[in-house]
Amino acid sequence: WPKVKANLKKGDALYFSHGFSIVYKEQTGVVPPDYVDVILVAPKGSGASVRTNFLAGSGINSSFAVFQDATGRAEQRTMALGIAIGSGYLFPTTFEKEVHSDLTGERGVLMGALAGVMEAQYNLLRKHGHSPSEAFNETVEELTQSLIRLVDKNGMDWMYANCSTTAQRGALDWRHQFRKAVEPVFDWLYESVISGEQTRIVIEANSAKDYRQKLEKELKEMRESEMWRAGAAVRSLRPENWKKK
Amino acid sequence: WPKVKANLKKGDALYFSHGFSIVYKEQTGVVPPDYVDVILVAPKGSGASVRTNFLAGSGINSSFAVFQDATGRAEQRTMALGIAIGSGYLFPTTFEKEVHSDLTGERGVLMGALAGVMEAQYNLLRKHGHSPSEAFNETVEELTQSLIRLVDKNGMDWMYANCSTTAQRGALDWRHQFRKAVEPVFDWLYESVISGEQTRIVIEANSAKDYRQKLEKELKEMRESEMWRAGAAVRSLRPENWKKK
Repeated sequence: WPKVKANLKKGDALYFSHGFSIVYKEQTGVVPPDYVDVILVAPKGSGASVRTNFLAGSGINSSFAVFQDATGRAEQRTMALGIAIGSGYLFPTTFEKEVHSDLTGERGVLMGALAGVMEAQYNLLRKHGHSPSEAFNETVEELTQSLIRLVDKNGMDWMYANCSTTAQRGALDWRHQFRKAVEPVFDWLYESVISGEQTRIVIEANSAKDYRQKLEKELKEMRESEMWRAGAAVRSLRPENWKKK
Repeated sequence: WPKVKANLKKGDALYFSHGFSIVYKEQTGVVPPDYVDVILVAPKGSGASVRTNFLAGSGINSSFAVFQDATGRAEQRTMALGIAIGSGYLFPTTFEKEVHSDLTGERGVLMGALAGVMEAQYNLLRKHGHSPSEAFNETVEELTQSLIRLVDKNGMDWMYANCSTTAQRGALDWRHQFRKAVEPVFDWLYESVISGEQTRIVIEANSAKDYRQKLEKELKEMRESEMWRAGAAVRSLRPENWKKK
């Protein structure tokens, strides 16, 4: 940041794709001078998908915000950037709301809860003697190859309507139990995001010289767990992957 | 079942796509005569996806099992059916294991837990003043349009590796909290499946003359909730849907 700051000229725009640096300024030390625009366009997806979906003629939605308008053109510049990176559509937010929802979402449904809930079900099925193939198909493959695509296309109720009435009855009932079970974790998580505890942990961990090796080691453990080795085997058996062997 | 049973001839094959009727025979009354094959091929996906994926040259994986081999050709017939319906690959199971994992999976990750965990996060974000657009994008759209596709392609660790190190650190930590929170619900669910309580509830509900209208009413409530109305609005703004308006 000191290097960037030293090179900022009057009328420049400081563009962020995340509210982190500005909102948690006590932890990051990022306080921009008053003669630059400070703007945000935050794509709601992985960088890989921003590119893939752009090429497919679709796009990834982004939120946008203006933190500081020094030139009177800050909002125009924000919009231009949002369109240039191929956003599907743009919706307004603030730097605070962006970073709070983003840190919560990735620790929650999008990554953390997704992995945790899948692990719980896979472990349960294995504990009761189901094969790795059955446990993985019933937990991950059926979701990613079938059901989530229906949710994506027309919403949750439409996916439900495309399943058996046995499945509908059970899922309509049990979703309440799962929602109640995770509500306290979500409250705790949001509180920990707001208080700055989550960003403190990240800054501390990612300040270690070998933090990338440490993360890679944790991802390797996940990849080499029985569940995700089963996943690799299942994927290799997809007809479209036969020729790759 | 009485009508089907009356028409079964020696050497016929009775083919199931679910272990339900045979395993819970005390509740269903389905006890096949000893002169027919009783076989199972259970596609792990919605009927809509079995067709869509078949046309795309992929397929949906299926489990298979032989409950009764009257002709000596039961396994051959099972395999032939599995291939005929376009299974990606076939893995062995038993009628019991199939129905236990299937009833658990649809009430769990695939449908019930998916909806419940999404509702919890959406409600949390709305409670803290995030807009419907931000709450839906951070909970559903980013998952279905970006992250789950990466999991589908190369596994959970690969999806993580394609996200920021901030997201990785947080998700690696928080998945344990979410897993622990839902483990008791999964234990309760599996017990309720094994004991026959879940099938009893389904048979009772689906024996009502108007059970389809009742289910449709519940799905309508879901569709018309703020969360899924936000979803419909978000989907209509996808570039590929602009021309449809």
